[in-house]
Amino acid sequence: MEIEKMIKQLNPKFRNIDGKKLLIAIAIDEDKTVLMTAFMDEEALKTTLETGYMHYYSTSRDKIWRKGEESGNVQKVKEIYADCDKDALLFVVEQKGWACHENYYTCFHYKLNLKNNDIEIVGENMVNKY
Amino acid sequence: MEIEKMIKQLNPKFRNIDGKKLLIAIAIDEDKTVLMTAFMDEEALKTTLETGYMHYYSTSRDKIWRKGEESGNVQKVKEIYADCDKDALLFVVEQKGWACHENYYTCFHYKLNLKNNDIEIVGENMVNKY
Repeated sequence: MEIEKMIKQLNPKFRNIDGKKLLIAIAIDEDKTVLMTAFMDEEALKTTLETGYMHYYSTSRDKIWRKGEESGNVQKVKEIYADCDKDALLFVVEQKGWACHENYYTCFHYKLNLKNNDIEIVGENMVNKY
Repeated sequence: MEIEKMIKQLNPKFRNIDGKKLLIAIAIDEDKTVLMTAFMDEEALKTTLETGYMHYYSTSRDKIWRKGEESGNVQKVKEIYADCDKDALLFVVEQKGWACHENYYTCFHYKLNLKNNDIEIVGENMVNKY
């Protein structure tokens, strides 16, 4: 099978993360905004490659989830890059709606203010917006 | 101390990664190109905040390293964002030279070609370039 052959050629470095063999998966949109990072086990990676939609492994729920399966905010895969030590994959995705379950476009919406050492929320709440 | 207060307020979620308590650290440049991802323990995070330069925790060498300490390709911190579950930090950095020890600008220079399921190197080798 072609996808399994590609995974074998890639030879990803699954790390022991919270007791599971996982890769780091970073999702960015087509404007290069970092949307989120989560984990993939081998099955989540295969399912992502097979379906063309992002699937992650949830360490809290201990299972694979299709991003957006409840919210509808799915992520369609456009491009994939691996890093030099193969423990992380970068996915360029087409984000439907927004990425964060807290209803912000990106999960990275807590800014550390380096001037006053405070933490502030940036971006807008997408549910309040519409 | 102000930095310790900010870390306490942030309340980062250190995961058990390869037997250590670590955060995921993603570095992007000011044009939002994803440069690399690596890990930080609490000391690496503190040292990064105190010095303004990226310090990571190396799981293979089992110690903190200042990015660029050998190559000179340091990363000066410009902005920091935390994600919603606080297990990952996104650092906007000013990258000196290039990020990857394989002499590419970004560590994510292995592209998975989704048309033919092959893996190809993208970008240019910066040492050959100059």
